[in-house]
Amino acid sequence: MQILDTVIRNARVVTAADIFTCDIGIRDGQIVSLATDLPTGLKEIDAAGRHVTPGGVDSHVHLDQPTGDGSVMADDFYSGTVSAACGGTTTVIPFASQQKGESLRAAVEDYHRRVGDKPVIDYAFHLIVTDPTPDVLQRELPALIAEGYTSFKIYMTYDALKLGDREILETLSVARREGAMVMLHAENSDCIAWLTERLLAAGLDAPRYHATSRPMLVEREATHRAIALAELVDVPILIVHVSGRDAVEQIRWAQSKGLKVYAETCPQYLFLTAASLGCDDSFEGAKCICSPPPRDPANQQVIWDGLENGSFEVFSSDHAPFRYEGHDGKKAHGESPTFEQVANGIPGIETRMALLWSEGVRKGRITPQSFVALTSTNAAKMYGLYPRKGSVAIGADADLVIWNEGEPVRITNEMLHHNVDYTPYEGMQLSAWPAITLARGEVVWDGEPRGAAGRGKFLPCQKPAPAQTRRRPHELPL
Amino acid sequence: MQILDTVIRNARVVTAADIFTCDIGIRDGQIVSLATDLPTGLKEIDAAGRHVTPGGVDSHVHLDQPTGDGSVMADDFYSGTVSAACGGTTTVIPFASQQKGESLRAAVEDYHRRVGDKPVIDYAFHLIVTDPTPDVLQRELPALIAEGYTSFKIYMTYDALKLGDREILETLSVARREGAMVMLHAENSDCIAWLTERLLAAGLDAPRYHATSRPMLVEREATHRAIALAELVDVPILIVHVSGRDAVEQIRWAQSKGLKVYAETCPQYLFLTAASLGCDDSFEGAKCICSPPPRDPANQQVIWDGLENGSFEVFSSDHAPFRYEGHDGKKAHGESPTFEQVANGIPGIETRMALLWSEGVRKGRITPQSFVALTSTNAAKMYGLYPRKGSVAIGADADLVIWNEGEPVRITNEMLHHNVDYTPYEGMQLSAWPAITLARGEVVWDGEPRGAAGRGKFLPCQKPAPAQTRRRPHELPL
Amino acid sequence: MQILDTVIRNARVVTAADIFTCDIGIRDGQIVSLATDLPTGLKEIDAAGRHVTPGGVDSHVHLDQPTGDGSVMADDFYSGTVSAACGGTTTVIPFASQQKGESLRAAVEDYHRRVGDKPVIDYAFHLIVTDPTPDVLQRELPALIAEGYTSFKIYMTYDALKLGDREILETLSVARREGAMVMLHAENSDCIAWLTERLLAAGLDAPRYHATSRPMLVEREATHRAIALAELVDVPILIVHVSGRDAVEQIRWAQSKGLKVYAETCPQYLFLTAASLGCDDSFEGAKCICSPPPRDPANQQVIWDGLENGSFEVFSSDHAPFRYEGHDGKKAHGESPTFEQVANGIPGIETRMALLWSEGVRKGRITPQSFVALTSTNAAKMYGLYPRKGSVAIGADADLVIWNEGEPVRITNEMLHHNVDYTPYEGMQLSAWPAITLARGEVVWDGEPRGAAGRGKFLPCQKPAPAQTRRRPHELPL
Amino acid sequence: MQILDTVIRNARVVTAADIFTCDIGIRDGQIVSLATDLPTGLKEIDAAGRHVTPGGVDSHVHLDQPTGDGSVMADDFYSGTVSAACGGTTTVIPFASQQKGESLRAAVEDYHRRVGDKPVIDYAFHLIVTDPTPDVLQRELPALIAEGYTSFKIYMTYDALKLGDREILETLSVARREGAMVMLHAENSDCIAWLTERLLAAGLDAPRYHATSRPMLVEREATHRAIALAELVDVPILIVHVSGRDAVEQIRWAQSKGLKVYAETCPQYLFLTAASLGCDDSFEGAKCICSPPPRDPANQQVIWDGLENGSFEVFSSDHAPFRYEGHDGKKAHGESPTFEQVANGIPGIETRMALLWSEGVRKGRITPQSFVALTSTNAAKMYGLYPRKGSVAIGADADLVIWNEGEPVRITNEMLHHNVDYTPYEGMQLSAWPAITLARGEVVWDGEPRGAAGRGKFLPCQKPAPAQTRRRPHELPL
Repeated sequence: MQILDTVIRNARVVTAADIFTCDIGIRDGQIVSLATDLPTGLKEIDAAGRHVTPGGVDSHVHLDQPTGDGSVMADDFYSGTVSAACGGTTTVIPFASQQKGESLRAAVEDYHRRVGDKPVIDYAFHLIVTDPTPDVLQRELPALIAEGYTSFKIYMTYDALKLGDREILETLSVARREGAMVMLHAENSDCIAWLTERLLAAGLDAPRYHATSRPMLVEREATHRAIALAELVDVPILIVHVSGRDAVEQIRWAQSKGLKVYAETCPQYLFLTAASLGCDDSFEGAKCICSPPPRDPANQQVIWDGLENGSFEVFSSDHAPFRYEGHDGKKAHGESPTFEQVANGIPGIETRMALLWSEGVRKGRITPQSFVALTSTNAAKMYGLYPRKGSVAIGADADLVIWNEGEPVRITNEMLHHNVDYTPYEGMQLSAWPAITLARGEVVWDGEPRGAAGRGKFLPCQKPAPAQTRRRPHELPL
Repeated sequence: MQILDTVIRNARVVTAADIFTCDIGIRDGQIVSLATDLPTGLKEIDAAGRHVTPGGVDSHVHLDQPTGDGSVMADDFYSGTVSAACGGTTTVIPFASQQKGESLRAAVEDYHRRVGDKPVIDYAFHLIVTDPTPDVLQRELPALIAEGYTSFKIYMTYDALKLGDREILETLSVARREGAMVMLHAENSDCIAWLTERLLAAGLDAPRYHATSRPMLVEREATHRAIALAELVDVPILIVHVSGRDAVEQIRWAQSKGLKVYAETCPQYLFLTAASLGCDDSFEGAKCICSPPPRDPANQQVIWDGLENGSFEVFSSDHAPFRYEGHDGKKAHGESPTFEQVANGIPGIETRMALLWSEGVRKGRITPQSFVALTSTNAAKMYGLYPRKGSVAIGADADLVIWNEGEPVRITNEMLHHNVDYTPYEGMQLSAWPAITLARGEVVWDGEPRGAAGRGKFLPCQKPAPAQTRRRPHELPL
Repeated sequence: MQILDTVIRNARVVTAADIFTCDIGIRDGQIVSLATDLPTGLKEIDAAGRHVTPGGVDSHVHLDQPTGDGSVMADDFYSGTVSAACGGTTTVIPFASQQKGESLRAAVEDYHRRVGDKPVIDYAFHLIVTDPTPDVLQRELPALIAEGYTSFKIYMTYDALKLGDREILETLSVARREGAMVMLHAENSDCIAWLTERLLAAGLDAPRYHATSRPMLVEREATHRAIALAELVDVPILIVHVSGRDAVEQIRWAQSKGLKVYAETCPQYLFLTAASLGCDDSFEGAKCICSPPPRDPANQQVIWDGLENGSFEVFSSDHAPFRYEGHDGKKAHGESPTFEQVANGIPGIETRMALLWSEGVRKGRITPQSFVALTSTNAAKMYGLYPRKGSVAIGADADLVIWNEGEPVRITNEMLHHNVDYTPYEGMQLSAWPAITLARGEVVWDGEPRGAAGRGKFLPCQKPAPAQTRRRPHELPL
Repeated sequence: MQILDTVIRNARVVTAADIFTCDIGIRDGQIVSLATDLPTGLKEIDAAGRHVTPGGVDSHVHLDQPTGDGSVMADDFYSGTVSAACGGTTTVIPFASQQKGESLRAAVEDYHRRVGDKPVIDYAFHLIVTDPTPDVLQRELPALIAEGYTSFKIYMTYDALKLGDREILETLSVARREGAMVMLHAENSDCIAWLTERLLAAGLDAPRYHATSRPMLVEREATHRAIALAELVDVPILIVHVSGRDAVEQIRWAQSKGLKVYAETCPQYLFLTAASLGCDDSFEGAKCICSPPPRDPANQQVIWDGLENGSFEVFSSDHAPFRYEGHDGKKAHGESPTFEQVANGIPGIETRMALLWSEGVRKGRITPQSFVALTSTNAAKMYGLYPRKGSVAIGADADLVIWNEGEPVRITNEMLHHNVDYTPYEGMQLSAWPAITLARGEVVWDGEPRGAAGRGKFLPCQKPAPAQTRRRPHELPL
């Protein structure tokens, strides 16, 4: 038996199912032994009394993604992945977004160029399909899926991104045939546009009207429609960033019928509300503009319940980093832009894990195992990175978080490593934070960021578990 | 006290609430007295032992409406209204359909020309809005509503007719502001197109695949969406021709929330099933092609339940008359057209009332009062014809049906007076049929059609009852 | 044609379906003509510009009913019926309540003795079955049903009254076989007892804890159970005094399935809340102690919605009159009894009609026709008094209310005619009150009570409409 | 590092979350290492290419339990545990059932005597509370919970066992205070008795009428009631042996509201239907008499869906072994007893694991991880045996199943080791069976039963995870 590179001693290991105490033996970046009494390794880390979880898989992040409207994402593949690592995340899945008229292949190549030698942790890519031409659907998409881009996102809103129902059906059909996973941003575009026009015409243009322009029914309608389209094509889907009761009800109704409808939620729907966008017309609220908007405390509770009762598979950040000051972020359209000119999105890649461990696990709302499932394992499975990522198991990459618990941590933007000049959680008091993050056995965070640029590798994804369902509403070879 | 024109003796009068026995006194085409012992009138009709109901208000019929694709509607305003009168219907509300690019005013004028001096019973018009330009929405529609065209229909499917969500919102906004009633044909157009393309590509083009191309979820999705759009605008709507459980569930869910979502169903959803479109590939099934398609016995029961428990307001025919033989009807695209080339619609203007009285009232499924509400009173109220139409009440038009009951009536197309060469109900055995129909006090059917062409008058409609609801999802002056 | 006893001129007549203007001709206490131009009657009443509705049928009132625990009902068949008439109600259906161990026949005879020559308006009786012995079920109940006692109430709570599930099943079976209507008081007795014990043990015994001791789930559970039992026996039921959302949801779910589950609500669930029982420990809140307790504004809205969307058939008072001062009412157990010693029930027989017309019809929440259906017609039908009672129709008893509208009316207990020393609605501002009440053609209220004791007659009830349903969960001749 | 007692080589380890390949090192009956390359152990087992799962925890079995009515359970703690071990189950949790009038302590002592030195695998006990006297609730139950009897079952049906609602509330209160887990058998006793009486009176007494006597609504009602009672007390519960849609809907509704309502199902609801009780009046159907009865294929699908979508926590056998021949089992009341004289229950302790692996995992309906969760991990957690039982993890007991897959196995009663003379699954073809079962590191099945009587140990249970919920319908210190 070869000597171990690293031994983590007396870890309180948490997986998506289990908790147990043992030493963790690491060699060549992988976990090779879990045992009560491992021989001394080249490097020893004492984890006595500490929980050790799989590193986070943040499956919904936007890094260095052009917006096309003047605002610039503040995080590239260096600052974004450093920030992730410092918050306990060891794998990110950002998006390679097609632009209308552009080839999907070109988009992928462009994003690989953007990555360059920057990332400090491993990464995969979701595609964003905005222009499902026959060539994209019949040639490019199958080829890219075969090469490891096995998931893609469809928008039901945003003019530059959205697909119509027919396009969604065609795209879902490819997903079904090729075994890919489809993520849907479910908000009704026309409703938002109609409300927005009226709000602006009435002079109601402050950030807080962003929430007014996207009421819950706008999300509920699109969620119902997405489910119907997926039911027709007979393919699993995942509804991203679910914000509250009405959408959860639609999703649980589908799940009750036996449909494979999965759901994701994000910290903003647990910790922010519409009031975070401001109670007056000050522009400060722009810091919390994201879509769907955060709702209210009753809806926060619905999301907590959904995390506990199995409605949600994935808890991601939807990190979309725009600076507040300066003219390349929230203020790309001037000092006091209207709400609909403000870039949608908030930063959260570094705070995601600690927020849920502190407020979820330590406050008894969810189990440690559920934390692992929601922040890491399920996303790894859903997007074809499992078993390499997402677990503390023999043969898995040694992507681990050793937790510091019990001491108060007050979130400030200063302590974070993203390139954004604010955090929506400024001043919030937590009781946990990652002490050490290991990525493929290397320490990338131990109070200081330690990962070298370029050490992160591209992860081609497997196809998710077989996608067939059993509920076609038509008995035909379609 | 002036002498009465007509006295109907010992009628078993049924209204939407009551049943009582009395004489009915008619003068100048109106009901002027209900009493136990009226003096002799100029004309006397003995109704002893017979139910007398308000004449039917058929609020969903298509007469002389161009289809734009070669098929021709077989009934004009003469044959259609004769057929209606012979079946106990005394008011029809056909459609004046805008064509894309055309002015709505022009459409209305065109339809009045088509009417000419043909109708034997009174009529109003719904508009069909297919091209909601700013001019149509801001100028024409308000003016026409003011002139008595107070309801209009929106299609969510059919390329030549359908509106997008944004157009629906704009159109609903006008309805809200002007107090008009909006009817929605709720099926998801893109889903149908996607399924149809695949079915045809697979060579599955016989009439029965029409039903396959429009599964229930297609109706469910559009119903949910229509409800969401109306909820956003905060305006009542009426979902037309509801076919089964999934749509009923959406509608009752909305009604439970306090939304003013009304619903209509039709005889084809009680008495036909998808099997009526054929169990093999024979073209005969084209006779029953309509949209949404009839479903199955379990869904028929759901519709019966909905008639009883208040889910539905209106029971109309959706009479859309196309001949089976010849090349201007179902075969406009040749002897064996594919299902999607077949004109959608079935005749039913004459059979509607007797079908529901025989199979509903006489079989104990619904009360006589519910029959009156569903076939006459509610439609009159919903579309602003009440109290002139829709009841046996003082001051109302003397539009009455005196029923013949208890003797078997076997439906054959020969006994009907429409200009269509078949009825979907051929051979069905009923136990009731109108003995006499009076329209404004005149006998228009007594075993023979008696109404003179041109005696029917145009009815400008009042605005329906105030449309305000109390459930805006946004607290804004929009 | 004989001369008319009374002619009401130019009435704006409202039925459960219609509104029309005409003269109303009355002879021998019945309505004999509705016409535009009646000859002069012996008595003439001008109703120009006034709504005229059927007199109220209050189908849930307690008069002179022994409580067995020291408190005494303040209204007997004189004061109770005078109060009813002054509030526009012309028929009451109080209860003849069996005591455990007593024969049902004896109870009926006892109540007829209590009636004596007191009533000023007509009345029928519901039975209350508290001891369904074989003799009661097999002999007495069928005989009494045949004699016109065609409805009976079952309690699921109150030790002195409640039946167990098996007894309920046996009693429902008789109702099914004999065609009677069963009313259920649905609250879970054991839950209430368990909560009450704990509350009292904790010293939480003020009136407001009455509401705490009967939370909504207690009503929801019993409602679900009542529905299940009725579904098993396959018989219609009516759930009385429904208080809010959870119960309404159960009822609508049953109605959606096609079950004949009817529901009643009362003014206290529209106009009172749990806060009416006090925000501190003062005993004043005892004035509003009734069961189920009033809930909160959100639940009030659910009840309003249910009145509009057809969830409810009947709006009754559940008049249960106990005096506040003195030692025979709310304080029968001393000056400061615990909440569970306080007699359950509030007065409301005189305020019911005006409350709903003022706050429902005049504020646009319900139509005038719905008012008539809910306060009169439906109850008459449900309990076999129709067509004699419940409508303005030829042959019906001339039980009518001529309304005074538009002038403010401030409710005070002084203006009421019951024998209770308070009203829960003291100080409430209404915009309508009955100007004249006629009962069988006689004026019994015109600003002063006018009805003579003893003029009210006993009404034997017909069996309600056939009770068969079509949804037996078992296919057996049970 | 000490030498390992046993090494299982190249196992395809499955936990409730993960699958990975490694060697499993066992020492002193526990798993001490999971690694890629373990040194040679005293005993070596080759598992190359084989799945290795945790041994089953069968948390719902009846062994040597007196029935009080003449029938005798065929399996004692020897045959029952041997049968379990041969089917891959390594822990059983049978019941220690109080008899009315008896002390709970006495029941526990009696059951320990029955156990004697018989068991070949480890066991714990659930209590059955049938007589919740104050002494039982205040003294015995808390003491027994403290001693490791941390779960108990409540029956809502069966005269000898059932509790009334008030007793259930009192018992749930103890569970809440002491942190115990309550299992509920949810069927409405009175409904069953009422139906049974009518069936027998009609001469419908064959086994198949057992299913008729317990229709789904009987289960639905009791499930709703159990949920309401638990909601009131604010304590988690587990509904046992859920049979189909109506109950699942109630449970998911509760879970959606955030209530901690857990559910269990059993093989009979996936693989049997009411037709298994016979299509004629033959007595053979008695072999499948259990309660609730199996339903139909549509309900089987609902149960499959529930296993997949998280509605169920536990998949147990409800092994209740009665012989078919002889006069101590199904025929204890003669050769042709009526259905209600037949002992309720079917054998299944040995077939449970293989049925679910073969038909669930291998047919793609559930994942291997879900299998582990449902058959082992969740029950261990729910009943306080985790982490000692229920996982393949460091420090856990080495209770393992090494699977044989891919070869057809035809179930016959001859191959089974229980003491029952039939299996309901006779002739069913599977594709998997345990090759080797290890219990605390010892082989107890390898094609032959190998476990010595008495090697099984009693397992005192921990209290389950904290039971507090957050949804009290009352804000009081009750």
